[in-house]
Amino acid sequence: MKVLVIGAHPDDIEPQMGGTIAKFTNKGYEVLILQFTDTGGKDKDIRNRESFNSAEILGAQIKYLHYEQENFIFQRKLVQNLDEIISAFRPNEIYTCWEYDSHQDHQTVSKVVLAASRKNMANVYFFEPIIPGGITPYSFKANYFVDISNTIETKIKSIKAYKSQLEKFGEDWIHAVYGRAKLRGFEINVNYAEAFQIVKKIHGI
Amino acid sequence: MKVLVIGAHPDDIEPQMGGTIAKFTNKGYEVLILQFTDTGGKDKDIRNRESFNSAEILGAQIKYLHYEQENFIFQRKLVQNLDEIISAFRPNEIYTCWEYDSHQDHQTVSKVVLAASRKNMANVYFFEPIIPGGITPYSFKANYFVDISNTIETKIKSIKAYKSQLEKFGEDWIHAVYGRAKLRGFEINVNYAEAFQIVKKIHGI
Amino acid sequence: MKVLVIGAHPDDIEPQMGGTIAKFTNKGYEVLILQFTDTGGKDKDIRNRESFNSAEILGAQIKYLHYEQENFIFQRKLVQNLDEIISAFRPNEIYTCWEYDSHQDHQTVSKVVLAASRKNMANVYFFEPIIPGGITPYSFKANYFVDISNTIETKIKSIKAYKSQLEKFGEDWIHAVYGRAKLRGFEINVNYAEAFQIVKKIHGI
Amino acid sequence: MKVLVIGAHPDDIEPQMGGTIAKFTNKGYEVLILQFTDTGGKDKDIRNRESFNSAEILGAQIKYLHYEQENFIFQRKLVQNLDEIISAFRPNEIYTCWEYDSHQDHQTVSKVVLAASRKNMANVYFFEPIIPGGITPYSFKANYFVDISNTIETKIKSIKAYKSQLEKFGEDWIHAVYGRAKLRGFEINVNYAEAFQIVKKIHGI
Amino acid sequence: MKVLVIGAHPDDIEPQMGGTIAKFTNKGYEVLILQFTDTGGKDKDIRNRESFNSAEILGAQIKYLHYEQENFIFQRKLVQNLDEIISAFRPNEIYTCWEYDSHQDHQTVSKVVLAASRKNMANVYFFEPIIPGGITPYSFKANYFVDISNTIETKIKSIKAYKSQLEKFGEDWIHAVYGRAKLRGFEINVNYAEAFQIVKKIHGI
Amino acid sequence: MKVLVIGAHPDDIEPQMGGTIAKFTNKGYEVLILQFTDTGGKDKDIRNRESFNSAEILGAQIKYLHYEQENFIFQRKLVQNLDEIISAFRPNEIYTCWEYDSHQDHQTVSKVVLAASRKNMANVYFFEPIIPGGITPYSFKANYFVDISNTIETKIKSIKAYKSQLEKFGEDWIHAVYGRAKLRGFEINVNYAEAFQIVKKIHGI
Repeated sequence: MKVLVIGAHPDDIEPQMGGTIAKFTNKGYEVLILQFTDTGGKDKDIRNRESFNSAEILGAQIKYLHYEQENFIFQRKLVQNLDEIISAFRPNEIYTCWEYDSHQDHQTVSKVVLAASRKNMANVYFFEPIIPGGITPYSFKANYFVDISNTIETKIKSIKAYKSQLEKFGEDWIHAVYGRAKLRGFEINVNYAEAFQIVKKIHGI
Repeated sequence: MKVLVIGAHPDDIEPQMGGTIAKFTNKGYEVLILQFTDTGGKDKDIRNRESFNSAEILGAQIKYLHYEQENFIFQRKLVQNLDEIISAFRPNEIYTCWEYDSHQDHQTVSKVVLAASRKNMANVYFFEPIIPGGITPYSFKANYFVDISNTIETKIKSIKAYKSQLEKFGEDWIHAVYGRAKLRGFEINVNYAEAFQIVKKIHGI
Repeated sequence: MKVLVIGAHPDDIEPQMGGTIAKFTNKGYEVLILQFTDTGGKDKDIRNRESFNSAEILGAQIKYLHYEQENFIFQRKLVQNLDEIISAFRPNEIYTCWEYDSHQDHQTVSKVVLAASRKNMANVYFFEPIIPGGITPYSFKANYFVDISNTIETKIKSIKAYKSQLEKFGEDWIHAVYGRAKLRGFEINVNYAEAFQIVKKIHGI
Repeated sequence: MKVLVIGAHPDDIEPQMGGTIAKFTNKGYEVLILQFTDTGGKDKDIRNRESFNSAEILGAQIKYLHYEQENFIFQRKLVQNLDEIISAFRPNEIYTCWEYDSHQDHQTVSKVVLAASRKNMANVYFFEPIIPGGITPYSFKANYFVDISNTIETKIKSIKAYKSQLEKFGEDWIHAVYGRAKLRGFEINVNYAEAFQIVKKIHGI
Repeated sequence: MKVLVIGAHPDDIEPQMGGTIAKFTNKGYEVLILQFTDTGGKDKDIRNRESFNSAEILGAQIKYLHYEQENFIFQRKLVQNLDEIISAFRPNEIYTCWEYDSHQDHQTVSKVVLAASRKNMANVYFFEPIIPGGITPYSFKANYFVDISNTIETKIKSIKAYKSQLEKFGEDWIHAVYGRAKLRGFEINVNYAEAFQIVKKIHGI
Repeated sequence: MKVLVIGAHPDDIEPQMGGTIAKFTNKGYEVLILQFTDTGGKDKDIRNRESFNSAEILGAQIKYLHYEQENFIFQRKLVQNLDEIISAFRPNEIYTCWEYDSHQDHQTVSKVVLAASRKNMANVYFFEPIIPGGITPYSFKANYFVDISNTIETKIKSIKAYKSQLEKFGEDWIHAVYGRAKLRGFEINVNYAEAFQIVKKIHGI
């Protein structure tokens, strides 16, 4: 089983599906995290380094495409680039940002994934809105739930690997992540869970 | 694996997911078809008998709840009745009509299933709008696809078991079913497929 | 300021908006909780008594309409009954269940409120899906947030007043409530929050 | 051309599509207004008489089905009754209330029409939310526009034929109707228009 | 109270919320109108001058960002620019175009506002579709209503300050604006009103 | 009657509405197919030539705008270009791609059409998702149906005129097209049909 997880910046992924990634790698799945941009700002190098530590904690590989944030808009070359990566990696499943996430780069990544996966050879999922994030006019429709009771601590560790961000957002970032996992867990009668929106699922994949 | 498929009348199910049922029973899954009403009209007995032949072709069990169509509205007693059946049968997956299907009884069954499955112990799916049926202001969102290339003929046989209905709707009924299966199949690069809307799916179930 | 909060059963309200009610009564608002049914089952009397204790903790009044759950469907007499209560109490704001909550009685209450408030003399809000509850094909759109950091403990106390339910759902019920409040709080940069969907708001009311 | 217009009570129709009806009858179309209930209250007889005057002004026929408002819920017998009327009248087009109108009876009529028109032999349209009415969580999607610049005065006359209602709602009722017609007119570059949501349209009908 | 109102071109704002702005400035609120582009065409200078007259009538400040319409697409630099303005002005409330307005620049402004307000420190609202404008597949969901009976004439004056546009669109432009205000007013039992969609509202802001 | 059909690449149109175009030209309507890009890749010239053969079979004119696919994003110059074409051709009806089609260029064309048709002088329709295409989170809402029983074979011929594509997609492409037409036909009680989403329709146009 090969899983491709696609985000725009370092730390887009762990608070939303770190527990599922850890669960997958524990089972021996091959998980590749793809980041479209390096992010910007003065802590750019620090965050990138942190992302490698975080991926290691989760047992996943990580790869950067190094797009500039300044001109990061939904256009053909991004779709083609991702198309090639998908053709080479041949994932069974693709996870990415929700198309209505409040951050413009997350929206772009999501649109690119939808366009690039149009050959319908892999399952596609959106993970939950990225924490922290804005409130938009849209609502996320969770319809897929993964029990992460056994990997919640690994997930939290992978988030804490982003020391620069933890400093910025504070401990409440971690509490919000625990809160959501607890809420989602209670919905399916387990301790902690992560939730997703299924875009498409093909029986047998 | 135990699968509960829930409809309102005989022949609500086969044109929509006969291929998936045959695929499941071929794999050894236990499939129980539950019909809330006996349908009405003068061909009531005939259609009920046909439904047993059809279920046999698919390798499924069938059970009637014998509600009167005249007073078949969404209310507590239906939810409780289904709740008890679910508790006894303990299905892993439940399939039912789409909530916005044009027929009032299909809508009722769908609402009952959503309310009765609120303990979130089983996956829940809607099958496609029932053929033949009306055009409503809503659109079905297919996000789950099952390759039925190997069971399409069994499916067609199970539909043709409803001789009284085939006479009524004509051969075009069969052609429309083939047409949809072909279209859905092409979407996932196989010969024939059936499509569903995932209401909820829990990883590992 | 007069606030009417409308549910179907005891304990429909506190886990969703106990914090907001406590905040309102602390400010001197008059809050009336209206319950359409007495709920059923063998613990009916116990739950009703608990609901009075709970309301007292929140500083709210509570009133039962004693409808039978067995025949609790959306119909004229419910709308008329609520219409009269609204005319007498003259609330500035009305809060009720989300129309797509998984429980049939919650759906009915919500529909009755929407129909009975058609004179547009009060603001109307849906509180979040009731915990515990099912997963439906719909998603709640939170667009109104209330900081309950100062009343979270009163809220929890009001929930624990339902001893019979706490026993049934376990401590995880409380944890899920805390989890959601933490998540919602982080979204608006406070410690704990409750979220709502605004159906209509009239400036100056 | 035969047109069936379906409402729940007297005066459900004129403020929403009186101009279109007058336009149709001017062209020689046969328009039949169908009212499911007689409405209730002490002015029942007055309103019913007014509705005949109003229909006469519009050049339409009117027919009552005399259902009791008290038990007016979405159920089979209503669908069957309308089914028979449609089979007898054989309309090319059916117009009815929006399914999310704030009044429970309007919702019921709309659901009945959708279910009864499932043979797809006629075009089906919703007219705009009934004025006066409540604000609900839904929004009407106008996608069909009829220029009523030449029949606006006939429309207003047909509304004023409901003297009992005009007294109740006041002159502002008329102003709101003019206001909406002006707004809709400006959208399609004419003086006054009425807007509809197309549920289904079949080319050539 | 500080209010930021954001549009793409001169006259995007007055026909939609001129009455609310006048009401706010009458109460002593500080209202800043922000225009992303200067608009184009030969009447560009005239329209810009008119916009200052119009703002003065409403008691609001106005500020232009002078983006070129030719390359006005949703991208990072716009979000960052607005982010800085929001950080400097610190508005309690932000009003902007609806995301599905028919004009591409209105859509862009709306997306920029949603992305730039992701820190959730201000309430955010969409005003109604801009008149004149196109018919799109989407429908505006009004859920917030402001009584402008006392400021309707100021609003109309602020629109008429755009003499060049009034000449272009004709008196029917004014009539359509009155028509909508009358319709919205009747919905909340007042003479004239303006309606909005609440994107997010935080209690106490 | 003048009809403008707008796509992004050669073969975007025939599998979706070739039957309707043939029906229209048979009636003497003037149909102009507008293609925004030349498509790319090594078979570019071949596909363009094929598109002229295909248009001829359908009795339609075809015109290319020659935009580069590499920079084909939703922006002002595209809207202005189409605006001019619409002003010159003065179509009664415009048909284009669905805004949520899986291909980025189809989305762009659809957005351009919606923006350029904001003067509301023509009816606007989306044709069904392009075959072959991806599965997205959206669902197409067919509400307009055209009987193409008499032109289905002309339609198929027009598709087969794209020999290069037929080779690429295989005979199953044709079967999927037949399948959808059969399904849509059965929905309106005819042999074959094409379905559309009405964006706006103005009575009398």
